[in-house]
Amino acid sequence: MDEFSVKFTAQRKTVRVKRGTDILTAAVKCGIPLSASCGGEGLCGKCRVTVTAGKFRAGDSRLVSAADRKKGVVLSCQTIVEGDLEVSIGSSSLEERGGPDDASREFTPGGPSGSEKAFAFSPLVRKVAIEVPGPSQDDNMPDLDRVCDALKAATGKLHVSTRLAGVKHLQEVLRDSDYKVTAVLAYKDDSIEILAFEPGDTSKANYGFAFDIGTTTVAGQLIDLAGGAILGTRIAFNRQSVYGSDVITRIIYASSPEGLEKLNAAVIGNINEMISDLATQCGVGIADVYAVVCAGNMTMMHLLLKIDPSNIRKAPYVPATSVFPPVHPSELGIRVNPKGIVSFLPGVSTYVGGDTVAGVLACGLFDSDKLSLLIDIGTNGEVVLGNAEWMIGAAASAGPAFEGSGMSCGMKAVAGAINRVEIGDGLKVTPGTIGGGKPEGICGSGYIDLLCQMRRRGIIAKDGKIDPGIRSGRIRKAEGVREFVVAFGADTASGRDITVTEDDIENLKRSKGAIYSAVAAILKRVDKKISDVEKIYIAGGFGSYLNIESSIYIGLLPDTARQAYSFIGNSSLTGARVSLVSHEAYEKTLEIYRKITYLDLGSDPAYMDEYIASLFFPHTDAERFPSVR
Amino acid sequence: MDEFSVKFTAQRKTVRVKRGTDILTAAVKCGIPLSASCGGEGLCGKCRVTVTAGKFRAGDSRLVSAADRKKGVVLSCQTIVEGDLEVSIGSSSLEERGGPDDASREFTPGGPSGSEKAFAFSPLVRKVAIEVPGPSQDDNMPDLDRVCDALKAATGKLHVSTRLAGVKHLQEVLRDSDYKVTAVLAYKDDSIEILAFEPGDTSKANYGFAFDIGTTTVAGQLIDLAGGAILGTRIAFNRQSVYGSDVITRIIYASSPEGLEKLNAAVIGNINEMISDLATQCGVGIADVYAVVCAGNMTMMHLLLKIDPSNIRKAPYVPATSVFPPVHPSELGIRVNPKGIVSFLPGVSTYVGGDTVAGVLACGLFDSDKLSLLIDIGTNGEVVLGNAEWMIGAAASAGPAFEGSGMSCGMKAVAGAINRVEIGDGLKVTPGTIGGGKPEGICGSGYIDLLCQMRRRGIIAKDGKIDPGIRSGRIRKAEGVREFVVAFGADTASGRDITVTEDDIENLKRSKGAIYSAVAAILKRVDKKISDVEKIYIAGGFGSYLNIESSIYIGLLPDTARQAYSFIGNSSLTGARVSLVSHEAYEKTLEIYRKITYLDLGSDPAYMDEYIASLFFPHTDAERFPSVR
Repeated sequence: MDEFSVKFTAQRKTVRVKRGTDILTAAVKCGIPLSASCGGEGLCGKCRVTVTAGKFRAGDSRLVSAADRKKGVVLSCQTIVEGDLEVSIGSSSLEERGGPDDASREFTPGGPSGSEKAFAFSPLVRKVAIEVPGPSQDDNMPDLDRVCDALKAATGKLHVSTRLAGVKHLQEVLRDSDYKVTAVLAYKDDSIEILAFEPGDTSKANYGFAFDIGTTTVAGQLIDLAGGAILGTRIAFNRQSVYGSDVITRIIYASSPEGLEKLNAAVIGNINEMISDLATQCGVGIADVYAVVCAGNMTMMHLLLKIDPSNIRKAPYVPATSVFPPVHPSELGIRVNPKGIVSFLPGVSTYVGGDTVAGVLACGLFDSDKLSLLIDIGTNGEVVLGNAEWMIGAAASAGPAFEGSGMSCGMKAVAGAINRVEIGDGLKVTPGTIGGGKPEGICGSGYIDLLCQMRRRGIIAKDGKIDPGIRSGRIRKAEGVREFVVAFGADTASGRDITVTEDDIENLKRSKGAIYSAVAAILKRVDKKISDVEKIYIAGGFGSYLNIESSIYIGLLPDTARQAYSFIGNSSLTGARVSLVSHEAYEKTLEIYRKITYLDLGSDPAYMDEYIASLFFPHTDAERFPSVR
Repeated sequence: MDEFSVKFTAQRKTVRVKRGTDILTAAVKCGIPLSASCGGEGLCGKCRVTVTAGKFRAGDSRLVSAADRKKGVVLSCQTIVEGDLEVSIGSSSLEERGGPDDASREFTPGGPSGSEKAFAFSPLVRKVAIEVPGPSQDDNMPDLDRVCDALKAATGKLHVSTRLAGVKHLQEVLRDSDYKVTAVLAYKDDSIEILAFEPGDTSKANYGFAFDIGTTTVAGQLIDLAGGAILGTRIAFNRQSVYGSDVITRIIYASSPEGLEKLNAAVIGNINEMISDLATQCGVGIADVYAVVCAGNMTMMHLLLKIDPSNIRKAPYVPATSVFPPVHPSELGIRVNPKGIVSFLPGVSTYVGGDTVAGVLACGLFDSDKLSLLIDIGTNGEVVLGNAEWMIGAAASAGPAFEGSGMSCGMKAVAGAINRVEIGDGLKVTPGTIGGGKPEGICGSGYIDLLCQMRRRGIIAKDGKIDPGIRSGRIRKAEGVREFVVAFGADTASGRDITVTEDDIENLKRSKGAIYSAVAAILKRVDKKISDVEKIYIAGGFGSYLNIESSIYIGLLPDTARQAYSFIGNSSLTGARVSLVSHEAYEKTLEIYRKITYLDLGSDPAYMDEYIASLFFPHTDAERFPSVR
């Protein structure tokens, strides 16, 4: 079989590939982090490169202008290698653009959490300062014994365990600090485990990280475990995205040689960068971070722990495990204090993971006597219905559209993202951005508002097509696809127009349809109506804003009493944080995951019917949305 | 200050030392394992080297003949560097002579253990073969859940925990072996921890090692954990001996640069060599060894775990900890299955360590309603008196004489050692050796018999001096010191005479005195007489033989009813083995160590009086040994 070499000139890397390989694959093969948030589908246009020499066959993409095409610009995912190539990659096509600009953008987490108040403040790792009597002729107990006695008295816990690493330097620490030391303790049930000792009273310097490892985005928070305050939050695209946009493509990639290692290294890179950035920004020493809690879906947990995820996509779809034992940071290469612990929230099933359990914890559904519904809008949409007595959970593949990925002008919910939109008379568009600056793109809540407003103003029809009859400079065709200009270049941060295309709208329609029909199917299964549900918690990485009214108007959320709704933001991150600041909450997740019954929508005939019917704005069956009508 | 260079020619190592340094210290400083089992006291003669050039000042030792002295032969520990030197070390002076000859000698462990029957066979690590139903559409539990359910059913345990390393390859193992797998389980209280999974039924291939880490000798046993059989035993001098013969000199050495690392590496070397030798000999794969249990005194445990032991010798003599948490083999560099666990028996105090707790477990004293006494004769002699209600323990520094170390012809209780002696009319000596071959040296039980017989025949007086009036070819003076020839060169393995010198006898007298007076002091403390004691367990690394009658005759053991005595051999090793084959026994040690009250003989005025009075054969106070009189 023919083989060709592909040389990436700026990166000084050359790789040999078989004829028929695309350039994106070649780049990935030699470790170059090309952006491809659509997963190599030719949709996001982010993987553009310039071929400076050699023979290739470029796909026909409207995302590359004719002028650019003449210069050799191509979408790497759509361009087949047919000879030895030389390729130049502009810095904007690299996933890891780094720099403080991208990283320092603040992400405002969602609204209040019901359960943060429900659990006593009792972090997974606490620092307890003690003063122990020094040894004497009459009291020559071993150092550890005298320390354990003091810890039992100080904490009220009867069982103290320890690890070798924790006690190795105890003697030194005790003597160097005149027997005034701080014990770093992991709390579990009614016992404590000694992780380390520090000289003097360091009890105020105790920090932890909570992470939500999403398929599309990774969010992290630095928490002051001495007081409970959130010191900072970061959000970034999951670096695994370069290997595929959804869990299925990542699982396939994990089976390729070194695929699992690369996917693992990618997300560990996300985590370590966030840790380092947030710690630096907040003036926190890495050595003062002993606790990390991660929540994520089953595939993300497998990849994070470097466990082969392949059985997740093979029938009958079983994960290796749904409970992940805590590990030491070094086992994963996470750069916090090596004597610390990293904990993970358990999942229910292959498609209802620890992120959903975190959400159930965060909204307090598990503890309520009211029938409640949690809808978590992410790349997968998860739905849990129930109360303190019973819970049933399901998942639907929604795609990354609401996370701003795979969209022509999509972005995460960070500063610069359009997160709300008004369209007035004369199609005057008033976008609001996170941070208030010039818009750079559109995030999930912005798209929801936009669809609602476009539908209200008749710009799009029930099926999502842009009305060709409207005469406006905002409506035009680019490369054969109709689009609506949300902001013209003069008003945007980049100087380029921000638009929503009919392809984008199709993506959004499928996403909202998947989520709505999951809710409908789960209600049908337990023979309940939406009006029976007293509380509806909407979760998702939308930043601080989601317009419930707009969501109902486009048929994403069911049409019921508005006061039933509350938006709880990134509940996976909230659940991870609640578990970090309360070991009782963490232990509660080990009950919650067992209690949730999993409903497999793929094998539920009601689901597919619901889905097909939901591919309209708001729905095929207008009766379901009386307030929209 | 003057500095000189010392060059060890054969080893190609040169070290710079200050004027006044001895050659042994120079050798140790550059990592050459010179034999010095007397700890550099000029007594054992094993550290002889030849100075080929340079200025030095040699001590006056009778262990180097005048002829040798002229050739430059010196005892390195007694020779002071006074200029740049070149030194040649013969291979016989190197501690690590290696080779199968030394290592393959079988050691026969002591008699039966009372407690091996008391605990149900239930090893710390068990392998349980299970067959689990494969997943299906109707049963898509995670792999680990289905395995845990099967394990709960198979073991009757309700709590199953796991470590990441244990489950990482579960999916592969399950599918590759058609869902018939073997779980490797660590047992603890009423819970089990999954260490690993193996394909198919490997439950018969389950092995463990028990170790007694003594100051002078290290003993190890390979145990079949599927059935409980002892497959093999090894004994070797502790390689740390090169850095000092007793715990005090080792603790001092540990404070020197890299001292702790070297001492740790030495004993880990002992352990790994025994593991490798025994596994090879018994055809056992290292990967089938998941469990290791170590017992040893406090200093040995600190050095094994690389914990600074310096506070053990500084008043008020406190160890870092008396309980040592289990670790993974890789944390210590122990070469068994890396997913296994290494456990340690807890100690009572600085001088009553895990070896003694092991002994109390092994003899069953902790569980008896009869007043019982355990006397463990080692480099430290430990004594525990008590019953199921109360226990009191003490330790006395006996020195390594009974372990064959620091003696002119001493050796371990291995094949070739004289372990029993008869002296007939005309001073005809009939030595018995372990293994029945020609004698190579004398082990502890041989010395005890020898002293008894020499005393009976009037060869030595009450004070241990050899009677100069006896005319016999066996009694002579060598280099000014009187000695008794036990076997002439014609009858020995090496062709050299095997002798006992007055210096040896002095050593033995102090050793026996230390132990006897510890027993006497502890009885006095609790106001008991030896006749109140119903069971006396004698432990020590004497091999299979110890003559109780001889031991009483020389005043090592108290003169009481002979049927009270039983010899239980190396009870530290037995206790480690019992803990290995019964997790209930291991857990019992965590009760025993708390229950033993420590009596500090150093601060007990009765002890020094007793000790001085005991420096005769059998004792100053003949009333105490009526049957000898």
